[in-house]
Amino acid sequence: MKALRKIIIESDSRQGRIFDIFIQVLIVISLITFSVDTLPNKTESTTRLLRTIEIITVSIFTIEYLFRVVLSERKLKFVFSFFGLVDLLSILPFYLSVGLDLRSLRALRLLRLFKLFRYSKTIRRMKVALSIARQELVLFFSLTCILLYLSAVGIYYFENAAQPESFSSIFSSLWWAVATLTTVGYGDIYPITVGGKIFTFAILMVGLGIVAIPAGIIASAVEKARDMEG
Amino acid sequence: MKALRKIIIESDSRQGRIFDIFIQVLIVISLITFSVDTLPNKTESTTRLLRTIEIITVSIFTIEYLFRVVLSERKLKFVFSFFGLVDLLSILPFYLSVGLDLRSLRALRLLRLFKLFRYSKTIRRMKVALSIARQELVLFFSLTCILLYLSAVGIYYFENAAQPESFSSIFSSLWWAVATLTTVGYGDIYPITVGGKIFTFAILMVGLGIVAIPAGIIASAVEKARDMEG
Amino acid sequence: MKALRKIIIESDSRQGRIFDIFIQVLIVISLITFSVDTLPNKTESTTRLLRTIEIITVSIFTIEYLFRVVLSERKLKFVFSFFGLVDLLSILPFYLSVGLDLRSLRALRLLRLFKLFRYSKTIRRMKVALSIARQELVLFFSLTCILLYLSAVGIYYFENAAQPESFSSIFSSLWWAVATLTTVGYGDIYPITVGGKIFTFAILMVGLGIVAIPAGIIASAVEKARDMEG
Amino acid sequence: MKALRKIIIESDSRQGRIFDIFIQVLIVISLITFSVDTLPNKTESTTRLLRTIEIITVSIFTIEYLFRVVLSERKLKFVFSFFGLVDLLSILPFYLSVGLDLRSLRALRLLRLFKLFRYSKTIRRMKVALSIARQELVLFFSLTCILLYLSAVGIYYFENAAQPESFSSIFSSLWWAVATLTTVGYGDIYPITVGGKIFTFAILMVGLGIVAIPAGIIASAVEKARDMEG
Repeated sequence: MKALRKIIIESDSRQGRIFDIFIQVLIVISLITFSVDTLPNKTESTTRLLRTIEIITVSIFTIEYLFRVVLSERKLKFVFSFFGLVDLLSILPFYLSVGLDLRSLRALRLLRLFKLFRYSKTIRRMKVALSIARQELVLFFSLTCILLYLSAVGIYYFENAAQPESFSSIFSSLWWAVATLTTVGYGDIYPITVGGKIFTFAILMVGLGIVAIPAGIIASAVEKARDMEG
Repeated sequence: MKALRKIIIESDSRQGRIFDIFIQVLIVISLITFSVDTLPNKTESTTRLLRTIEIITVSIFTIEYLFRVVLSERKLKFVFSFFGLVDLLSILPFYLSVGLDLRSLRALRLLRLFKLFRYSKTIRRMKVALSIARQELVLFFSLTCILLYLSAVGIYYFENAAQPESFSSIFSSLWWAVATLTTVGYGDIYPITVGGKIFTFAILMVGLGIVAIPAGIIASAVEKARDMEG
Repeated sequence: MKALRKIIIESDSRQGRIFDIFIQVLIVISLITFSVDTLPNKTESTTRLLRTIEIITVSIFTIEYLFRVVLSERKLKFVFSFFGLVDLLSILPFYLSVGLDLRSLRALRLLRLFKLFRYSKTIRRMKVALSIARQELVLFFSLTCILLYLSAVGIYYFENAAQPESFSSIFSSLWWAVATLTTVGYGDIYPITVGGKIFTFAILMVGLGIVAIPAGIIASAVEKARDMEG
Repeated sequence: MKALRKIIIESDSRQGRIFDIFIQVLIVISLITFSVDTLPNKTESTTRLLRTIEIITVSIFTIEYLFRVVLSERKLKFVFSFFGLVDLLSILPFYLSVGLDLRSLRALRLLRLFKLFRYSKTIRRMKVALSIARQELVLFFSLTCILLYLSAVGIYYFENAAQPESFSSIFSSLWWAVATLTTVGYGDIYPITVGGKIFTFAILMVGLGIVAIPAGIIASAVEKARDMEG
């Protein structure tokens, strides 16, 4: 019992690490299987192979999950923890054959890698940094949303008459605002009137700041969190 | 009188908070109504429903506005304050039935949310950060404008002969400069000559810095403002 | 003589400021004239008006330039200074009627605005920041160039066979590398093979850092320069 | 022997610097030759000229390489060092006439420029900065990969039915995720459904931070490394 806990839950011993790496490799295999599964025009033998791999990996994940629950000292706490829920949700659909496929959630299980490679200090630092910058992030996210809305309304007035197809409503204009202020700029929708172009320039000058500042604030909060450690 | 002021103007009491949240929800509803109103091909019943919601929300906003004026200790100061003007401008067009629709300004009323959730410290910090970085921001904004102009002139000389439609004048070239230096890159206009491409590379190397630095400067000014508090 | 110098060269007195602002307004007018001049399909009267404005502004700029030279204590030093050369180059082509139009250089004359609004401290800080970060900037610019070249070669091998038109040589691939690593992404040229897409992902992961870091380094050098002042 | 080492390996003496600059110029020439070589429709005389330049430069590089090996005090260490391998790999294919052309690796030889211009301090600082930020970089790179995968799966569910050609599988969706989260936005593939657009907005709000933070972290680590020096 104690030996099993050492292997499955903890990762300090050699066997524990090997077990963890084995599970992580299985997760990656199962994610690739899932992705290949979405390819159109698969041959029947490929489909069969994918199905087999899926059955094997899910079986192992299920056994692992049950062991994790049984071996936990506080079972309920594990079941409702982040990793407990992710572990469950990424195998449950297989048994329930529900419409919604949650296999991609297995990607989140890869986050255990950080525990494996002893990143606990770095992760704690990130949490400190996030808590330092929390209020600024909420503020800038709200400002971004308000700015996106006002940009959408503005461009709608400038472009709707000239391009009734592209800027058909404030909702399509919102899509333009998102693609423009994040500087993605797909090019599926853009202003053609002089007024709309000048408005875009003005919005970008204000918006680039508002959208780009959070990353800078987090970066300096990480720095501060590092200073607080030493 | 005092009790009403507590509810409508202040937001410390329980009733005050409930009132504020009620108004904020109304604002969001009215913004959605406004957006839906721009959708083409609405049925008549939808139009009627939107109109009804608009009448109800504007009525409530009007009563709220009048109360805010009456309950203010310094009435004129409130009327000409930022929120006083925004409150007025976002209901006035309804009564004047003017051409210009200012309903979208209600989005700015959402900024009161920050007061509600006691973000006054964060907002004060932002103001300090902006005042620290003010001169740099003006400097970089001016440099950006000059760089945009010179980029537009430069690309005009390189591309006008090859693409007389896209780069028809310095004004169209300015639009290219805005879309390129902000890295939005819609793809509606781009250089095709070798000279124009090399020029774009040179401009981007200088310009990425000039456009991206302000965000970094604000981020570190926020950091400094935080340090000044403690 | 002394009074004239106070007005034209210095900008401390009231008359000096008025003169400076007058010249700056003239520069902006002349830049707009220049831009309008590039518009196709102008009427004859417009062309005549533009020509008249050009003659007036150039005359004033010439008189101003001559005064600046005459009133300078060290004449040669002014003539070969940055502003001295910009002043000369932006009026000379008018008299020589050379092919190359340098009127756009007048935009650089707008930089005198910073002197007018007493930004000398901010500009000095920028110079300190640039000198702090100089070596890093040279390093990252070199790394960017090498990375652009290697990206171009890489994508050429992946895409040339599939898209011989778009990726016709390393030179066209270089254009792709510039547009991609700066995240402009016009969409005129992009990989379509699986190998090319994976290569793009790898290059972007490395490249985003190398291209984006200089802006961050300058921002923190500005911060350091500010600290050194106080 | 000692004199030769001074010239070829060290770059403190005047002759050493001249030799180094001579080699660097040759590398640039050979890189240009290599690029021109990929141009389609070359005349026969051009091809011959390129071939001649290639033979001359490779001969000089080979002699240089042999001298570097012979003159090194610890020969094996040089051969297996970064520059030793780059030097070898960028001439070897010429003699083996293998399919894979590694001439572009010569670009990496340009890194010796930094030694030439005594950038050793700056490079050491960069190494310190990278070692400070290493764990954060690994963390954010992993988060980026997981986020890219989840974005690809999400957009696949939203868009596959509407655009079975563009979002044909999770692999094509991954390409969309890369182009979008890096804000390159070529415009070859983008969401058209309302759900897909809202999902893109959500992903971008989270993703811009995760992708942009590493550059900020490196920038502040450079700052810290600078502080540690003084």
